[in-house]
Amino acid sequence: MTDAPHGDATLGGQDDAGGAVALARDLIRCPSVTPDDGCAIDVLADVLRGMGFTVTSLPFGEGSARTPNLFARLGTTHPHVCFAGHTDVVPVGEGAWSSDPFAAQVHEGILYGRGACDMKGGIAAFVAAVRSYLARHQGTPRGSISLLITGDEEGPATNGTVRVLQWMDEHAQIPDFCVVGEPTNPQAMGEVIKIGRRGSLNATISVNGVQGHVAYPHRADNPVHRLLAILHELTASPLDAGSDWFEPSSLQVTSIDVGNMATNVIPATARARLNIRFNDLHSGADLAGWIRTVCARHAPGAEVIVNISGESFLTQPTAGVEALRQAVADVTGHEPRLDTGGGTSDARFISRYCPVAEFGLVGASMHKVDEHVAVADLAQLTRIYDSFLERLMG
Amino acid sequence: MTDAPHGDATLGGQDDAGGAVALARDLIRCPSVTPDDGCAIDVLADVLRGMGFTVTSLPFGEGSARTPNLFARLGTTHPHVCFAGHTDVVPVGEGAWSSDPFAAQVHEGILYGRGACDMKGGIAAFVAAVRSYLARHQGTPRGSISLLITGDEEGPATNGTVRVLQWMDEHAQIPDFCVVGEPTNPQAMGEVIKIGRRGSLNATISVNGVQGHVAYPHRADNPVHRLLAILHELTASPLDAGSDWFEPSSLQVTSIDVGNMATNVIPATARARLNIRFNDLHSGADLAGWIRTVCARHAPGAEVIVNISGESFLTQPTAGVEALRQAVADVTGHEPRLDTGGGTSDARFISRYCPVAEFGLVGASMHKVDEHVAVADLAQLTRIYDSFLERLMG
Repeated sequence: MTDAPHGDATLGGQDDAGGAVALARDLIRCPSVTPDDGCAIDVLADVLRGMGFTVTSLPFGEGSARTPNLFARLGTTHPHVCFAGHTDVVPVGEGAWSSDPFAAQVHEGILYGRGACDMKGGIAAFVAAVRSYLARHQGTPRGSISLLITGDEEGPATNGTVRVLQWMDEHAQIPDFCVVGEPTNPQAMGEVIKIGRRGSLNATISVNGVQGHVAYPHRADNPVHRLLAILHELTASPLDAGSDWFEPSSLQVTSIDVGNMATNVIPATARARLNIRFNDLHSGADLAGWIRTVCARHAPGAEVIVNISGESFLTQPTAGVEALRQAVADVTGHEPRLDTGGGTSDARFISRYCPVAEFGLVGASMHKVDEHVAVADLAQLTRIYDSFLERLMG
Repeated sequence: MTDAPHGDATLGGQDDAGGAVALARDLIRCPSVTPDDGCAIDVLADVLRGMGFTVTSLPFGEGSARTPNLFARLGTTHPHVCFAGHTDVVPVGEGAWSSDPFAAQVHEGILYGRGACDMKGGIAAFVAAVRSYLARHQGTPRGSISLLITGDEEGPATNGTVRVLQWMDEHAQIPDFCVVGEPTNPQAMGEVIKIGRRGSLNATISVNGVQGHVAYPHRADNPVHRLLAILHELTASPLDAGSDWFEPSSLQVTSIDVGNMATNVIPATARARLNIRFNDLHSGADLAGWIRTVCARHAPGAEVIVNISGESFLTQPTAGVEALRQAVADVTGHEPRLDTGGGTSDARFISRYCPVAEFGLVGASMHKVDEHVAVADLAQLTRIYDSFLERLMG
């Protein structure tokens, strides 16, 4: 890969309408590997101030857990459309990159760098779209536009979007509709808008038995066999067959650990970990209760620790979703699928306050070595967000 | 505990007929923690030579695996009765002993020390019994008496009894009946004679799947779920209901290990280990085939490693067993149970060559801290072995 001149994007013949590529490159050059900020939020804040936004810096947490966050709003009236995203990125990983992951080089129409698609590129496209929209509207939105940006989405997500939303609620800043700019398209622009997400629950099950010699099993109580009975019952049947907007829920046993090296010894303890991705037919509490009931049946006294990291949510495909759908279809020529699959995102927190949908870049390279985004995709996403703003505030 | 004067057993008022206690103490004072010999076999060899035995030293293995063994025989005619045992002991363990585990102290009629019951005490009782028998028979047995002693029963048992038996076979020294002096009595002298043992099989099952994100299980192949299906089928039903002389066979899953710390990742591999103690309704090969069939059904390509450490065996209760039973009943006043339960012993190797039964001391303290034997029990076991010899060669 040849090195493009720093600060002078080689756009492969494309123009950088609204400056999406230039801003994406500036953001990528801030090495904001979670939990470090690496100046990314400051770079963005400066740009937004320059466009007339009222920018509020909202750091939360103390010491090493201190997380930079930003809420920026232009206008005070309704409809209030918010764009949510994060400036932190995952580590560069163990593989060798073809170029410096924070150099933001463009080669043959492709911008490379950690965060290119997840999701500094998405933030840059939104800013560029707002700039384009404002250019048609004398610099004043017909309603208001805001950005909710956190530096802690890839990390524990404790002092990020959750805390900013609390602040927004306390300061009457909750929007009418929110778009999260996560990369939602598996392979090509226009494939998928996410209108919900499954919930996620982690459980750790620890069973204590009575250690003993394998030759005298009646004098022992094998915790592995009790754990097997629990896991067999938990995995015996599908949790459901899916619902209107959701895939079937899925339970995956992710680890079982006993660590007994002696072939002639029945161990004293056995532990399993599992994750459930569940749809709107379940609640985290119901599933936790079910797990505890099954454990109690096969291993009274088993220790069951359940952590519900998010409930399922669904945004019915009403006005905001419809505007986004039309914008995607118009710009890409593809009818996007309204989907609820995949992992979790900060949309799970936003859904508690207002309707939220997710649409962004192509995510095929996210979290991988040589993460990248096509410059043409950045331009297309800018036009999609612009069209979306126009449909809601035209 | 007070310290008894070295070399001067405090026998709690009992006399040491035949010198069983004195020899047991001398043997315990050799710290022969497997695989070290610690002079124990040499001490025994000297005693046997003094009694007229022809002693053959039979070390097998090279370097650190070199194992001391001994075959000693008195007389050349039949019936040929052999006593089998081991001088190696298990480590002293992590608990604190009330006295030095190799000091062989006697306190209030109890001899303490590593190997007291498993099984230096048994060896000492046999030597004392032979001395007593010979005293009644002018120093010449009516038949012949031998000892098969190994220094590798508690270890891998590779260069011990197995190799000595090969040598005995090659040199026409296979006995007509063999008694193994392992501690067979759970709580009190006279409870149990073992006339067989279950077989033992260890298996390691490794399943490879396809790693992936828990949110996309259809793109992964969870090896834990395949392993669960295997283990559920293997443990779903009892292997059998027992047979004439045997308890039901038992399958115990001893460990499952995945080692996946990431709650959102489906792991690439999962491994389980299991042990089967099986009776005479099964062979190791049949069980290995069954395990492989079940694995292939749920996880084609699973790696299955099976190690058959012993087939089951049974010595029908004929002349030798009957002599031993009568001797136990006469001396103890208890009718011993003919049993095939518990762990494995070197009897599994001997059974390939000749009838074998096992009777020894009370094993409640074996492998534990403060291993011990009652001096009275040593005296009783000496009388039992003496009576047994008299019944077969009287």
